[in-house]
This record gives sequence, C-alpha cells and structure tokens, in this order.
Amino acid sequence: MNSTIRLQLEHKTIRKFKEIEIPEEIVSTLIDVARHTSTSSFMQAYSIIRVSDPGKKEKLAQFGKQDYIAQAPLLLVMLSDMHRNTKIAQENSASDIHFASFDRFLSSSTDAILAAQNIMIAAESLGLGGVFLGSILNQADKIIEVLELPDYVVPVLGIGIGYPDQEPQLKPRLPQAFMFMEDRYQLPDLAELQEYDALVNQYYDLRDANRRVDKFTTQVTRYAENPNLERSRLLDIFRSQKIIKY
Amino acid sequence: MNSTIRLQLEHKTIRKFKEIEIPEEIVSTLIDVARHTSTSSFMQAYSIIRVSDPGKKEKLAQFGKQDYIAQAPLLLVMLSDMHRNTKIAQENSASDIHFASFDRFLSSSTDAILAAQNIMIAAESLGLGGVFLGSILNQADKIIEVLELPDYVVPVLGIGIGYPDQEPQLKPRLPQAFMFMEDRYQLPDLAELQEYDALVNQYYDLRDANRRVDKFTTQVTRYAENPNLERSRLLDIFRSQKIIKY
Repeated sequence: MNSTIRLQLEHKTIRKFKEIEIPEEIVSTLIDVARHTSTSSFMQAYSIIRVSDPGKKEKLAQFGKQDYIAQAPLLLVMLSDMHRNTKIAQENSASDIHFASFDRFLSSSTDAILAAQNIMIAAESLGLGGVFLGSILNQADKIIEVLELPDYVVPVLGIGIGYPDQEPQLKPRLPQAFMFMEDRYQLPDLAELQEYDALVNQYYDLRDANRRVDKFTTQVTRYAENPNLERSRLLDIFRSQKIIKY
Repeated sequence: MNSTIRLQLEHKTIRKFKEIEIPEEIVSTLIDVARHTSTSSFMQAYSIIRVSDPGKKEKLAQFGKQDYIAQAPLLLVMLSDMHRNTKIAQENSASDIHFASFDRFLSSSTDAILAAQNIMIAAESLGLGGVFLGSILNQADKIIEVLELPDYVVPVLGIGIGYPDQEPQLKPRLPQAFMFMEDRYQLPDLAELQEYDALVNQYYDLRDANRRVDKFTTQVTRYAENPNLERSRLLDIFRSQKIIKY
C-alpha cells in the first residue's frame, strides 16, 4: 500500500464542486500527465478540448442532461483524433491513408481513455475530484458541431474536475470472484451475488433517504430493459465523421 | 508535484522483465484497484482474465507477434463483458435486453480501459513496469477461442506486467499546443512539428544504434500507408460475438 494505491482504492465520483478556479499550472500538469500516458504504436491519435465558454458548457450540460457538466470548473472532452495524423500523412504525400478502420478507431479511443484515467488520478492526488461524462455522447452529432470537430475526430469521454463540495461514500464493487478469472472465462453461480446486492442496497440506504434503495442486479435488469435511444445512432454518427468506414 | 504525478510523468513502457514472480498479494491489490475505477452507469461491464497457462501465453504471443507477451510474469486481458449482466437480466426475467448497441460496447470497453490504466499506475507505484498490448486484437477470433469467451464478451486490451529488466529513455510526446485545445478543434501549423520531429529523431538515435532513426511525422505516414489487414475484420468478429449488433 502506498499513497497512489490508497487514492485509487478510495476513488469516489465527485459531481458537486466548490466555486474555486483550478490554477492554470495545475491544468497544465494534468495535460502533461495525459501526454505521458501510453499510446498505441506511438500514434498519439487523441486530443483534448477544454470547454471554457459558458454557453458551450451549458449546451454540453443540456446534451448530457446533467447540470453538473456546466458547473465543473474544468471541463475536458477527450477526442479520438485521426485528423491530425491524416493531415501529417497528406503533407508527407502518403500513397494512401488507412486510418478509417474500426480497429484504428479502437486504438485511438483507447489512447484517449487511458489518458482520461491518468488525468483523474493526477487530479485526485492534488485534492481535486471528478466525474467521467459518458453522457456527452447522448447527442454526439450536436457536440461535434459545438466543438467544431472536423472529419476523423469524435468525442469519446468527458471529464468534469474541481474541488469537491461533497463527501460521497465509497460505492461497493463487484467482488473479485465475479470479474477476475484465470485462463478462461468462467463465472461463479450468480445466485452468490445476493450478498453483494445487500451491500449495494445498504449503500443507497445510507446515502440518500430520498432515493430509491436499489440492488445491483435490479439496476442491471432495468438498464437492460431500457435502451438509450438517443445513442442508438452513435455508430452512424461516427461513420459520418469518417472515422469508422470499415 | 507529488509522487503520483512524478510516476505518471516518468511513465515508460517496459517490455523486458526479470524472472521474478509477482507476489499474489500484489496481484490482488492490482485487481482491487481496477475494481475501484469509475464505471459507466455502475454497470461494471468488464472482466479481467489472467493468463497463467504457459501454452496459452505462448499462443497470445504468437497472435500478437511479440515474444514479450509470453514472458510477462503477469499477463492480463481486459474484456468488454456484457455476458454477466445479460445473465443477471435474464435471471431477473427482464422483458427485453438492449445491450448489443455500439454505444454500450463503447461504455463497457471504456470501463475496461480506465481500469487498465489504473492497474498500470498501481503497478508502477510498486516498482513494477508494464506494457499495454493492443496486439492481442491481431487475431481476435483466436484469442476469443483460447480464452473461451462466451457471446457478448470481447477482448479490448492486454497488459503485461513484471519487474523491469530494462531502463528505457523517456519518449518525447507531442507538445501541448498540438493536442490541447480550447472550446473548439484547432491545430497549429503542422510545419511547427519540425522541432518535435527532431526531438523524436534524437530519442531513437540515443536509444538504439541499430534501429532506424525516425521522425514522428515519418512514422505517422508509414502507419497511414500500411493497413493492419489482420485486424480489418475486427468489427465483424465483434459482431459475431453479438456484442455489437447495431
């Protein structure tokens, strides 16, 4: 156990921030941490947009239907970016450009997401807290427009960061036996999830008397039954950005 | 600056490991760190397979065409996993199950990749080193077979971890100006990459006298020109695993 691992084991999502600006020096450090993350084939095929314009932040909050998106002192959008490398290849008179595969999209979005987690830990190590915003993909075509993303660039994940103005409880996670396997895929009897369900139930009970007390398996079932219709066009939108052609 | 950020800024990929086993307690800590990573909608839709069987490790090394895959004392495969939650929803008599969207694949693979970066930092904080293995996707259908992945489960990223037996130089990264933007997508003049190209050139020159000295823009151009044909079927393979239907 050391201070890094302690941070990681105590990770909690922060959605309520103090109205304190994050010093520019810290922002720059967070981006440096992102830059030093591993990158597939050294392609560095991702970029980060900081959304500072209050009008744009408001729009992203509307798309994601979460007020705290606009309230995060630092709002970052991680991009899978094949535009920069396409331009580089063009200027170097590449004979052909094969960036538009699903495989390469996966590599570049992996770059962006690894960097996102690195940013989160660095922020937490500095007393900041944050939230990952998958919800920015709810209306991917609109965020592409707002951030003026060119072809071959799509958003993959948002991050809201600030000084925490809440102290959430640690949320109990699936026991190792249900998600860590050896040599082949194998699951314990799912009936054994009962104990974990009880823990999750207790967590919600303690957290908020007004909120529905819920088990993990109930949440999964509800989630399964309700498709996110807004995002059902996501692959089509990514295709129309030309980042995935085949 | 603190010890966590120092680790992150000094990150180097390690591909050569001492022949020392990693204590089981440390492996368990790394998995605990993964478990405490943020997860989209609390779905925890990822799993981790540790590949210990020497024959299976050898196969993965063949698929990825990298010997060091088999030599990593700890070899992990991060999975996007919709199987567990599908089973949970079925056992709870879900009226319908809507997990097979591209959107939900992206969420679950994001879970897996955020956890992967958390594992990497935790490992580095303990004096270990590692390498992310995108190459395990070279022959995704075969690794699916070897790891006996059921429908709704696909590999997204491998990780090799061990005690470092090499001391690589820090690899220079794209300057912030080329990957960090404000409010909208915008790039500096790419001619300004010349200085960075020179840095990369110097890095390779110092690293290995036998290896071709290379610039960043040259690497990008070569990469653009050469499609990874083995992986061109990746989306089809994922579709046949039923994890992406629409």
